[in-house]
Amino acid sequence: MNIVLLEPDHILNNDVWQIDNPRQLQHLRQHLELNVGDTLKVGIRQELRYLTEVLEISEQHIIVRPIQADRVPEKLPVHLILALPRPKVLRRIIMDAVTVGVERISLIHSYRVDKSYWQTPFLQQLDDYVTLGLEQAGDTIAPEIQLYKRFKPFVEDVLPTWINAERPAYVAHPYAEQHMPYAIQHGCSLIIGPEGGFIPYEIELLKKNGCQAMSIGNRILRTETAVSNILGRLFV
Amino acid sequence: MNIVLLEPDHILNNDVWQIDNPRQLQHLRQHLELNVGDTLKVGIRQELRYLTEVLEISEQHIIVRPIQADRVPEKLPVHLILALPRPKVLRRIIMDAVTVGVERISLIHSYRVDKSYWQTPFLQQLDDYVTLGLEQAGDTIAPEIQLYKRFKPFVEDVLPTWINAERPAYVAHPYAEQHMPYAIQHGCSLIIGPEGGFIPYEIELLKKNGCQAMSIGNRILRTETAVSNILGRLFV
Repeated sequence: MNIVLLEPDHILNNDVWQIDNPRQLQHLRQHLELNVGDTLKVGIRQELRYLTEVLEISEQHIIVRPIQADRVPEKLPVHLILALPRPKVLRRIIMDAVTVGVERISLIHSYRVDKSYWQTPFLQQLDDYVTLGLEQAGDTIAPEIQLYKRFKPFVEDVLPTWINAERPAYVAHPYAEQHMPYAIQHGCSLIIGPEGGFIPYEIELLKKNGCQAMSIGNRILRTETAVSNILGRLFV
Repeated sequence: MNIVLLEPDHILNNDVWQIDNPRQLQHLRQHLELNVGDTLKVGIRQELRYLTEVLEISEQHIIVRPIQADRVPEKLPVHLILALPRPKVLRRIIMDAVTVGVERISLIHSYRVDKSYWQTPFLQQLDDYVTLGLEQAGDTIAPEIQLYKRFKPFVEDVLPTWINAERPAYVAHPYAEQHMPYAIQHGCSLIIGPEGGFIPYEIELLKKNGCQAMSIGNRILRTETAVSNILGRLFV
């Protein structure tokens, strides 16, 4: 947690902001030995981040006042399209994608996505994972997350509207002949399949609808590792 | 698991290899519906990987015979030097670093590494994490892992012997002026600090001993995410 992210309704007035979320309070108690008068980095969701001064500390809340506003880090111009991961790794993947700074996330179905994954209660907690990612990165702007439970209608009807010459779509695919580009100077969509990969039919359908299959070498990475590895090379 | 990694003593004779590790058997039962006559990718530790044919399946073992040898993926020419991570994330970081293909790993102490981390039983399981990483990548060659429990002697006496003009050492550091390079065509050491970062004294000591501090932008990544993100940009 590199900033404390507050909802706008925690601004009691311009000079008095209240931290009362138990998770945030516990984290601050555990990792920082805060005293009245110390500075603390605090962000307001969808707004700026600030250096603040601690005015009051109690069991139930910490009161701070803003000293200086600071711009939040820029996003990467990438729309991450991800076959819905196993519930166990969903939290880390969303959190990391948000930390690294993706602009937008779509979770899609695919043949090798177990249908039961769409029932996981973790999907109700996406906002919490986004918050954790923003707090890690020192960011305040939540990316939009959308769910598409049917592969074919998504690829045929939705995806093509996001693709154009300035904004190509790359599918990470182990058997592609072209290599995933690096240090690109434009936006893109990045599509990453499930553990086990997209099936050949899916790769063909993606290609037919404007996507470029790109290899990232002959080591097969876990989805989590692939996401940060590929984003690292695309946007240097 | 993209290959089953066997120890050389599982070669009963040139044409009969035995898989009898309970973890591997359970994984194969759970994820593949193997039948006699099917093919299976199997690697021999420190040797090659093979396409094999399944000869026999029982509760206690699976017998395969090699059909065709295949080279293992090349390593990245990088020595990853990592402040010892929290026990909870040690497994994933080692596994991912091995999957991505680092040549060598050193785990070092640092001011913000809790001394108790050196007592974790997980440090006795590094070989298992390496095996998981190799099986994910389809690799058979385990990187060497070394532990250095004292920061200063490591940085002053050991680290400089690994650094030269063809093989620089980069420290990921949020406040560096230079940017971490990308698409490099040479080997390097990559040094990544603990959660919370190296303290200024440590950065100074690293620089004095030949390391270059390099920024990866103004988003602060978790150690795990930083490792795959930076390796992704260094070796494209």
